[in-house]
Amino acid sequence: MKTRDRILHTSLRLFNEMGEPSVTTLLIADELDISPGNLYYHFKSKTDILEELFQQFEECMYSILIVPESEMDIEDLWFYLHLIFENIAKFQFLYKDLVTIMAKYPQFEKRFQKILNTKRKASISVLENARKNERLHASTDEIEALTEQIILTTTFWLSYSSVREGQVADDALARGVYQVMSVVAPFLEPERRAMINGLKDAYL
Amino acid sequence: MKTRDRILHTSLRLFNEMGEPSVTTLLIADELDISPGNLYYHFKSKTDILEELFQQFEECMYSILIVPESEMDIEDLWFYLHLIFENIAKFQFLYKDLVTIMAKYPQFEKRFQKILNTKRKASISVLENARKNERLHASTDEIEALTEQIILTTTFWLSYSSVREGQVADDALARGVYQVMSVVAPFLEPERRAMINGLKDAYL
Repeated sequence: MKTRDRILHTSLRLFNEMGEPSVTTLLIADELDISPGNLYYHFKSKTDILEELFQQFEECMYSILIVPESEMDIEDLWFYLHLIFENIAKFQFLYKDLVTIMAKYPQFEKRFQKILNTKRKASISVLENARKNERLHASTDEIEALTEQIILTTTFWLSYSSVREGQVADDALARGVYQVMSVVAPFLEPERRAMINGLKDAYL
Repeated sequence: MKTRDRILHTSLRLFNEMGEPSVTTLLIADELDISPGNLYYHFKSKTDILEELFQQFEECMYSILIVPESEMDIEDLWFYLHLIFENIAKFQFLYKDLVTIMAKYPQFEKRFQKILNTKRKASISVLENARKNERLHASTDEIEALTEQIILTTTFWLSYSSVREGQVADDALARGVYQVMSVVAPFLEPERRAMINGLKDAYL
């Protein structure tokens, strides 16, 4: 692996383990056993490292958030949500210190809001599709409140898990997916609600 | 107002406005137009100020989280949730930088987890009561998932609102209450669901 990539890889791991505010460029250099000068040759500052990681995060999110044209079945939806949670877990430092990081690095704020908006559109599109096909019985107001609930849950589930348990629990991702499905469930046909319970038993 | 109380009052306001990580004791003294020495006479450090504010927060939370013995109607529940959100808003610095603050001040972690547990018990007690009286139609699994959703929403709604809009929106508290009610609504009788929509129209 190139030094530049090793720096990014190790920075991401340290940010996730210790939280962004506790990680300095000196600590990153130390962990990699390279000189600070070598690190500064590749990245001028911690902000430069964050900028690169944030770009990686954006690219992953946008590639996932393309909603498939065809209707998603319960199992597809479970899998799709799992991908979103996996990507959030990969960049969990960002989510765990979200308000702090947005205040400290205002250059990320609008870009993060754009991701939230893309999530909102994806959620409404999936729910409206299911309503059109009479799989989901919800009013427009209900679809809106559901969407807020889905975005809130995907955004803060890992923070909640880490505050509640003192660390992100092993089954936090699967629990997060189940939590999202549980707010959608009451609007589904009984047969589809049963499928969610089946998936819960299989994965949790 | 005594100097000690003025320090607490101003610290809380600055923490809420700027986020705890950005506020120093020097800034607090400056804002109050007192000397740092005068501040240190009352509080040895920022941690001492936080300790006192955290105690106030705990006392408020525990006094609210006593669930009334009698069954709560939709309007009572709306009002009760509003009290909880108001108290969270009063100490919003804690919630907005929750993961950061818990990592920085581990002495608060267990105490915050105890509040989450008390919230959990209060939520389950309210929901089980409504089920016993046949107002709520949910399985034990559903009551559990609902409870997680209610705690997640009360804990992170203001952070979500502040990240989404760049600041906590004016109607954030009422929206938070509505969001919590919207996850409970599908398990209620149609008549009670209609009451929630009525309250939404009145308050939002």
